[in-house]
Amino acid sequence: MSFASIMKIFLPKDRVFYGLFEEVSSNLTQMSEVFGKAVTEQDPSARAVLLKQLEDWEHKNDEVTHRIFIELGRNFITPFDREDIHYLATSLDDIADFMWGSAKRMMNYYIDDVDDTTRGFAEIIKKSITALNKAVYGLRDMKDLRSLTEACVLINSLENEGDDMLDRGMMQLFSSNTNPIEIIKKKDLYQMLEVVTDKCEDAANVIESIIIKYV
Amino acid sequence: MSFASIMKIFLPKDRVFYGLFEEVSSNLTQMSEVFGKAVTEQDPSARAVLLKQLEDWEHKNDEVTHRIFIELGRNFITPFDREDIHYLATSLDDIADFMWGSAKRMMNYYIDDVDDTTRGFAEIIKKSITALNKAVYGLRDMKDLRSLTEACVLINSLENEGDDMLDRGMMQLFSSNTNPIEIIKKKDLYQMLEVVTDKCEDAANVIESIIIKYV
Amino acid sequence: MSFASIMKIFLPKDRVFYGLFEEVSSNLTQMSEVFGKAVTEQDPSARAVLLKQLEDWEHKNDEVTHRIFIELGRNFITPFDREDIHYLATSLDDIADFMWGSAKRMMNYYIDDVDDTTRGFAEIIKKSITALNKAVYGLRDMKDLRSLTEACVLINSLENEGDDMLDRGMMQLFSSNTNPIEIIKKKDLYQMLEVVTDKCEDAANVIESIIIKYV
Repeated sequence: MSFASIMKIFLPKDRVFYGLFEEVSSNLTQMSEVFGKAVTEQDPSARAVLLKQLEDWEHKNDEVTHRIFIELGRNFITPFDREDIHYLATSLDDIADFMWGSAKRMMNYYIDDVDDTTRGFAEIIKKSITALNKAVYGLRDMKDLRSLTEACVLINSLENEGDDMLDRGMMQLFSSNTNPIEIIKKKDLYQMLEVVTDKCEDAANVIESIIIKYV
Repeated sequence: MSFASIMKIFLPKDRVFYGLFEEVSSNLTQMSEVFGKAVTEQDPSARAVLLKQLEDWEHKNDEVTHRIFIELGRNFITPFDREDIHYLATSLDDIADFMWGSAKRMMNYYIDDVDDTTRGFAEIIKKSITALNKAVYGLRDMKDLRSLTEACVLINSLENEGDDMLDRGMMQLFSSNTNPIEIIKKKDLYQMLEVVTDKCEDAANVIESIIIKYV
Repeated sequence: MSFASIMKIFLPKDRVFYGLFEEVSSNLTQMSEVFGKAVTEQDPSARAVLLKQLEDWEHKNDEVTHRIFIELGRNFITPFDREDIHYLATSLDDIADFMWGSAKRMMNYYIDDVDDTTRGFAEIIKKSITALNKAVYGLRDMKDLRSLTEACVLINSLENEGDDMLDRGMMQLFSSNTNPIEIIKKKDLYQMLEVVTDKCEDAANVIESIIIKYV
């Protein structure tokens, strides 16, 4: 009997959740990096290749999220409140969905001129997911509560930055001589990018409420 | 004392929920059929008559949903988790709301040329609600779990078809020489039709989670 | 020892929630009045000053909402179900968010001609929040249940009026010779104003469910 399989017997079953959340969180990190690369890529066809990659990550994420829900149905004992696990899984899954959704919108709407607002959002999203990743990995031992809380606070302030970015982006669209079809496309893209930052905030809020309850 | 009133005494009060959900589900089936007829109707005024019928169904559905919530407040014992009943009632009600909302949009936006995307959505919605109806009626005895689960899986894959339909519809709007006002109208209509398929998926997910817990 | 501090000791800690909800509700009342003034103000720069005031109220409201969640984490005993407190706080906070969001949209989109639909929405919102305020203040002693329920019923019917207002507003946009950019702006504004009435209804629904459970 291998050491790994012995461990499996003794490893409390509820700890499976940490690993699954960490897997999702690592996926999101990769997605935000690929998206960041795509929006700074000048060549449209190279950019399309990068954007398309997000679909695979999104599918992969769907599977892990599904496994979290299966485990939730199976386990009587969970490391934190069942509904917190449910909300955290849902909001992390939403982040992946809306990131891929934003990429798809860029392709389907034939948005070829990536602008400063889009690049600004990609930066905010990357920072937000970096902080989220830290927070998710911090859940396992809950030792460094200060840095866990700091990560959540940072995500909240990045969401505010996202709001401002959307406001400025919209003001620019309406103040400049943009044609209506261009406005329709960009408005839709900006709004979806802003939702990504909202979903990061949702995830951070669940994590904060877990910390409050369990410490 | 009539047989019916004797039955009423002995009928466990919690079973009232099955009947109410079945009533909602039958309403939805009729709505999806009327909507399907409307979008293939060539004559605009005949189509308007059909679309307008959805409003009555939606009102009727509101009343049944209200009764479900009243019963939920009254009954201590429910056939499945209280929150599952709540979610199922809410998502079924949303389906009716967004179906009537889509019909209303066609009328208020003066959309006279019903296109392939709209007709495609009507088909998907009809299939999805047929499967949903089967799943809802299957809840009462939970005997044929395989077909219950299959219905839920089908609804999930129809929701994916809805996503693709929206993507293709939007690509077409932006690639063809459509005028901006037409794009605004159609985009809004397609998005609401897609939400109908989302809400069907929500209902199917609740049903799946009920199956997992109670079997 | 002052009378106030003696009271503080004996005042059941769970009663803190009433005061906090009343504070939020008073904020909302002021917000709806300022918004009502803004949309009837003819001078654009005077209007901008009024609209901008909503931001401060929204921030103030965020703080009180945050205190509600802190108290919720702290108190084991709450005057009503924990999740009802959570939903009520969230929906009241949403009202403030979307009211300020509507004001911001008017500014960021450079909407200078305030139209009848916008003014109609401001009226509906004012009436709805007046009724909501009455309902929130009625929670403390739950004595006048009839007027509490009436307030909730009124809010529900005002939400229906909001739906009709949106429908008529959209029909007008699409039937008149409005330019596409104007349609994009107004549609977005109307939809957000309609969400304000939805959120008032959400709050009223929570209050109704509290009444049903606790009386």
